[in-house]
Amino acid sequence: MIETINISTSYAEEFRDITSLVEEKVKISGIKEGMVTVFVQHTTAAVTINENADSSVVEDILSTLDKIIPPRGNYSHAEGNSHAHIKSSLIGSSRQIIIQNGKLKLGTWQGIYFCEFDGPRRREIWLKINS
Amino acid sequence: MIETINISTSYAEEFRDITSLVEEKVKISGIKEGMVTVFVQHTTAAVTINENADSSVVEDILSTLDKIIPPRGNYSHAEGNSHAHIKSSLIGSSRQIIIQNGKLKLGTWQGIYFCEFDGPRRREIWLKINS
Amino acid sequence: MIETINISTSYAEEFRDITSLVEEKVKISGIKEGMVTVFVQHTTAAVTINENADSSVVEDILSTLDKIIPPRGNYSHAEGNSHAHIKSSLIGSSRQIIIQNGKLKLGTWQGIYFCEFDGPRRREIWLKINS
Repeated sequence: MIETINISTSYAEEFRDITSLVEEKVKISGIKEGMVTVFVQHTTAAVTINENADSSVVEDILSTLDKIIPPRGNYSHAEGNSHAHIKSSLIGSSRQIIIQNGKLKLGTWQGIYFCEFDGPRRREIWLKINS
Repeated sequence: MIETINISTSYAEEFRDITSLVEEKVKISGIKEGMVTVFVQHTTAAVTINENADSSVVEDILSTLDKIIPPRGNYSHAEGNSHAHIKSSLIGSSRQIIIQNGKLKLGTWQGIYFCEFDGPRRREIWLKINS
Repeated sequence: MIETINISTSYAEEFRDITSLVEEKVKISGIKEGMVTVFVQHTTAAVTINENADSSVVEDILSTLDKIIPPRGNYSHAEGNSHAHIKSSLIGSSRQIIIQNGKLKLGTWQGIYFCEFDGPRRREIWLKINS
């Protein structure tokens, strides 16, 4: 079963909490025990799991990534978004979350974040839900 | 089938080889052909696969991560562990390993490491084992 | 079902597009709806998904990784390939791709890349294909 999540990001770089959107799709699937794979079909975005309580955490991730991989660096790729491609490969384009009793089994402080590195844009995320 | 591994880390930052612990749980599961997903339910820790022979490799990973993402950097998050959250997203919170003939199918030099970035602490790792 | 892909890399560091090789194995498997896990069994290599159109993107990823994690840095590991081990853990040793209608379900610009960080060498990649 493949589900699609569509979002519109608001900024050039942004971490968007998509936990409730993933949870909703898992609920619709009716699968009680299994696994959901969250797959980002873009090459200048990614998905990660990190703290959902204090938003300064994801701000620190974004600003530190910008220090390590500056948006305006000396890159070959002519489109000016090489930094976004590099961040995409470092963070990764998919994550797996266990489904238990029809719900996402996440740690207390864990949220699922769509990582926008070259926005704002319309983005599409694919979910594969398996029992 | 979900299994839990509990460990207590000993240092602020540490790579702990959990291969034999994962292998034991796979054995108990009785599943001969399939996949195990190792999922870390914390946001200041991670899981990776790397060399199991020379411990200087994981020491180099830890010390290089500290150079790139200093523990005492200029971060917003007030708890002082932003570096650990950032490393968690860079290394990632889950890994998949193939099960073949009831055993983990790993390369000769591969071990599974729990990555502690904000210890020492009690930590819990979840395994989803599927045929 | 486990399949093996054998490749020989040509350079010390290189991103090799293996999308068509993975696709061929999925076709042979006969599985129409499912998931393929691409698993790299080496500790100085990795697998990622990134842009398949302009090769300057993967060149930028490689050169930026070399700036962050220099091949000739101050490392403990005596074999001189610590940088390759570190990059392996940052990019990761496995990726999952959805199979739909017998084909890899990838974004328009997405290709699967084997990441060589300590070549040239013969390398082996394992695929676990599940319905």
